[in-house]
Amino acid sequence: MRATVMHGAGDVRIENVPDATIIEPTDALLRVTRACICGSDLWPYRSMQRTDHGQRMGHEAIGVVEAVGADVRTVKRGDVVVMPFAISDGTCIFCHEGLPTGCVHLGFFGNQGNDGAQAEAVRIPYADGTLYPLQVGGDDALMPSLLTLSDVMGTGHHAAVIARVGPGKTVAVVGDGAVGLCGVIAAKRLKAERIILLGRHPARIALAREFGATDVVRERGADAVERVRQLTGGYGAHAVLECVGLGQAMETAIEITRPGGAIGRVGVPQDAAMPGSRPAFYHNITVGGGPAPVRAYIPELLPDILEGRIQPGRVFDAVVDLDGVSGGYRDMNERKSLKVMVRP
Amino acid sequence: MRATVMHGAGDVRIENVPDATIIEPTDALLRVTRACICGSDLWPYRSMQRTDHGQRMGHEAIGVVEAVGADVRTVKRGDVVVMPFAISDGTCIFCHEGLPTGCVHLGFFGNQGNDGAQAEAVRIPYADGTLYPLQVGGDDALMPSLLTLSDVMGTGHHAAVIARVGPGKTVAVVGDGAVGLCGVIAAKRLKAERIILLGRHPARIALAREFGATDVVRERGADAVERVRQLTGGYGAHAVLECVGLGQAMETAIEITRPGGAIGRVGVPQDAAMPGSRPAFYHNITVGGGPAPVRAYIPELLPDILEGRIQPGRVFDAVVDLDGVSGGYRDMNERKSLKVMVRP
Repeated sequence: MRATVMHGAGDVRIENVPDATIIEPTDALLRVTRACICGSDLWPYRSMQRTDHGQRMGHEAIGVVEAVGADVRTVKRGDVVVMPFAISDGTCIFCHEGLPTGCVHLGFFGNQGNDGAQAEAVRIPYADGTLYPLQVGGDDALMPSLLTLSDVMGTGHHAAVIARVGPGKTVAVVGDGAVGLCGVIAAKRLKAERIILLGRHPARIALAREFGATDVVRERGADAVERVRQLTGGYGAHAVLECVGLGQAMETAIEITRPGGAIGRVGVPQDAAMPGSRPAFYHNITVGGGPAPVRAYIPELLPDILEGRIQPGRVFDAVVDLDGVSGGYRDMNERKSLKVMVRP
Repeated sequence: MRATVMHGAGDVRIENVPDATIIEPTDALLRVTRACICGSDLWPYRSMQRTDHGQRMGHEAIGVVEAVGADVRTVKRGDVVVMPFAISDGTCIFCHEGLPTGCVHLGFFGNQGNDGAQAEAVRIPYADGTLYPLQVGGDDALMPSLLTLSDVMGTGHHAAVIARVGPGKTVAVVGDGAVGLCGVIAAKRLKAERIILLGRHPARIALAREFGATDVVRERGADAVERVRQLTGGYGAHAVLECVGLGQAMETAIEITRPGGAIGRVGVPQDAAMPGSRPAFYHNITVGGGPAPVRAYIPELLPDILEGRIQPGRVFDAVVDLDGVSGGYRDMNERKSLKVMVRP
């Protein structure tokens, strides 16, 4: 089958690899109908050391189940399913507590020898725990939005939940990528009174406003902090969604959070230490977040997508086939594309 | 009047200083009947650069109001009051929200020109917001426990609240100082199922067990992490109270928190950066805390002290007068004393 393999920074290839297949009785075989390129894929795209075998890429997908192992109970051949970015067994204490990304059998697609989703097919470990079956046809117009349940919509929602977004709150979203924009959707959905987007890309800002952003701060660093304070009576935001993962973004997040407020951080941290520990302490700011338990959020978010109340699929502004994946990485890296859908 | 002044590391003196007096109409004048030496006073005791004028010391007290300014409404001459470590106006949005340590007029006793409490008297700015009147006599046997409402009991409680301690939870407390021991009391009070103290001082461990600690881990670093994991089925604790403030303690705290768990940190951070940001992220651990809003916690904690359900005053194992303050610092620094009460 054909699959995306990254060999080093900037070197993304489509290669013929051994067909995905069922190995364990808890596996399913997924035929990928839609996948994505993720903002987090851009980190290795910029910095990956060249390796002999390369790395499979892609961790977000919707597809059709083609086969299941003998022990799989809740998904069957022909099901249309969401494939969240994390592998989880669905039975451990963390899965039961609603944190599948804390699963004792946690894995990530495209890592640790697991198949990537920017490919024709994917072997799905722990299919019962990992996959989420949808009651929709394979060509449903809602597919782009449903696809975001595999990562960015659930991740933006996680940031909002951890940042304790709620009615009457002022929310700031750091980052205008797909996760940041989904964070705006999540904040609006959770009835935030005011939503300040920190970003500077005109098309993304326009989309953020349609999603519910009430204010936009185009400045960065100290100027951005000053501007958010002006907008919030000098105090900062109750809830801040850190959707970048860089030290400076985290510093900004801490500085624009009001005393006693909370930061939900979902940008995969690229810096070893979290900056600004002291101001976070002196302002009693809570910092939480991590890999979002997106599968656990699907039951809550799905009705809003099916009934059209939220349209996170609007973050996709480009569609490619496998041959177009390399160009998709390039365009996302150059910020020409916001988020690229892959139709293998 | 006589007051404690620190001039440099290890150099604590009792000096004659100008009498505390009312300056603003919102001030009160407090005659100190009981004060304390705090674990956080030991940081400058170990590292303070010598200055010309020195620094007033002490931020925890109970006393009798001797005079009030013209605008003071809720405390009057003769009242026995708790003086929490933070100055707060009682009227700003943060005070109303229950975070007096986020007050727009926040100040700390012994800093920024404010009097210290290891002295005969203290000028109290924003007396209505800062002081908490007690309905007890000045020589009540409950005084040691009531005195802890000025800092350590409220601070341990804050750590427990932020770490989301509750029924059925496994709690770990990092640090066997007075705050850590009050954290044990708080965890027990909030109905934790299991309370693991990380500490190694025999007398403190014994007291922790009486306060409700079910397990003690004497190891440090990687060995402590391993031991806590053994005690918790390999997962770590739901709630971790970081009551030290050093990088290694914070690292340990992160490593012993189970995925999805929370850390309440109340040790004043002595390291600029918070270590271990990546593991906290990958395990979806929430880190919060800061200077505890101890005044806001008094209404909740006071009945338990008055009715004898908690006895945080047992952390005091030495009492000195002002002439004994310097020796009190020395004994606390050498861990010969757990917490020293000062009776000026």
